[in-house]
Amino acid sequence: MSSAEGRDLGRALCIITGASRGFGRSVAKEISRLLKPGSVLVLVARSGDDLRALQAELAESEAGVAVECVVADLGRMEGVDSAVRTCKEAFSEHIEHIILVNNAASLGDVSRYVKSFTNMAEVDSYLSFNVSSSLCLTANILQTFPQRPGLRRTVINITSLCALQPFSSWVLYCTGKAAREMMFKVLAEEEPDIRVLSYSPGPLDTDMQMEARSKTADPTIKKSLSNMFTQGQLLTCEESCAKLMKLLLENNFISGAHIDVYDV
Amino acid sequence: MSSAEGRDLGRALCIITGASRGFGRSVAKEISRLLKPGSVLVLVARSGDDLRALQAELAESEAGVAVECVVADLGRMEGVDSAVRTCKEAFSEHIEHIILVNNAASLGDVSRYVKSFTNMAEVDSYLSFNVSSSLCLTANILQTFPQRPGLRRTVINITSLCALQPFSSWVLYCTGKAAREMMFKVLAEEEPDIRVLSYSPGPLDTDMQMEARSKTADPTIKKSLSNMFTQGQLLTCEESCAKLMKLLLENNFISGAHIDVYDV
Repeated sequence: MSSAEGRDLGRALCIITGASRGFGRSVAKEISRLLKPGSVLVLVARSGDDLRALQAELAESEAGVAVECVVADLGRMEGVDSAVRTCKEAFSEHIEHIILVNNAASLGDVSRYVKSFTNMAEVDSYLSFNVSSSLCLTANILQTFPQRPGLRRTVINITSLCALQPFSSWVLYCTGKAAREMMFKVLAEEEPDIRVLSYSPGPLDTDMQMEARSKTADPTIKKSLSNMFTQGQLLTCEESCAKLMKLLLENNFISGAHIDVYDV
Repeated sequence: MSSAEGRDLGRALCIITGASRGFGRSVAKEISRLLKPGSVLVLVARSGDDLRALQAELAESEAGVAVECVVADLGRMEGVDSAVRTCKEAFSEHIEHIILVNNAASLGDVSRYVKSFTNMAEVDSYLSFNVSSSLCLTANILQTFPQRPGLRRTVINITSLCALQPFSSWVLYCTGKAAREMMFKVLAEEEPDIRVLSYSPGPLDTDMQMEARSKTADPTIKKSLSNMFTQGQLLTCEESCAKLMKLLLENNFISGAHIDVYDV
């Protein structure tokens, strides 16, 4: 690792999904500080208002980084296409690093147990947004920006302990996270030139955590989520994001690995 | 474990998906020998001709076991509904064991790498057949036959080493198997009265293995599959199925566990 690699992420085109809120929003803010002038941030989310507010905030603080917003539903092919089109337009020849942060995800209905998931359309829709879209966006970005000398490529998957461990009444979330993590492990096997990281940000003080705390059907898990909240054990997005930035700057993780915030 | 439990699987309603060929077909044949008279086998697959041939074969050898065929595409909700309807009709009050074998699966296109999966419809369709349908069929069966005294319930997931380990050019298969395995782990967490087993049957001498051997894009994996074949290292479905039957009869696996044929 050269010292330059340790201080910034280069002149990058950086795509962040689910960028309007929570952890994705923090990643946008933290990563923009590590990009060299001439970089572009492409922020993708469903909520246009939140995205534009973030864009305005970033425009003030990070003068040398262009910020593009893509208001799109990644659960649909048009949404993926729209994100890819913006990246193509934003790219220029002096970009030296493509960074894709697959952060967008939904919790799924945690108020019910496995035996209630009798409707295929519900499960299909969850997997489409949480698994297929992430695979297809990644594939499209890799095809749009193929391997060439002088171009680094980094693909980040925001994962969870739920990818490794089952939690009662969280079947969609656990299944989706396990699927995604395997998908990115296969990518790491296939493309040794790409740096692939599944980062588990830990229990964060976000809207999703509040949803989990209020809706989880399993009483033991619900209690434990409430306790984490009341006892101040939730991490801020900024804290966890700082660890992710450390991993990216040091850039010596094993490609495809699952790395937990508490192990950084 | 009483000795009776060790000799047979009781008077059961046993549903097997993907029963027309390969491992599913072997499971149908082997398990029917372990069912008490008055049991029902419900065989589900897309190919009606193959199913009916198997039904005829079983009718001759296993006089006391009724065999129902469901010709259905489990990638569609109607297919799941049709399988569940047949099970409801076949059930009678003297059934003492519900056995669901989630065997149906497809290999996915192994001739291509992650970066080629740019089309969401293809990935959605794979996950629908291999993940959603398995979750929804299981949920429907569990709702149709809820917990009650005197009724055992066993849910089997036919898994693979690919659920645990990434293989280059096998992204759909690895992702689907990892997703399914997690899903059944969550079920095991939620329902302590249900016996849940993810059984990995090993490299089998089946049509799917032939497809894998001929189409796999990754040259190292392709070579290794060919070597297994030419060196006679593939297991017969019968050999592997015998190990699964041993596990079911002994019935002392940890619910939710992944058990590999080579560990039995």
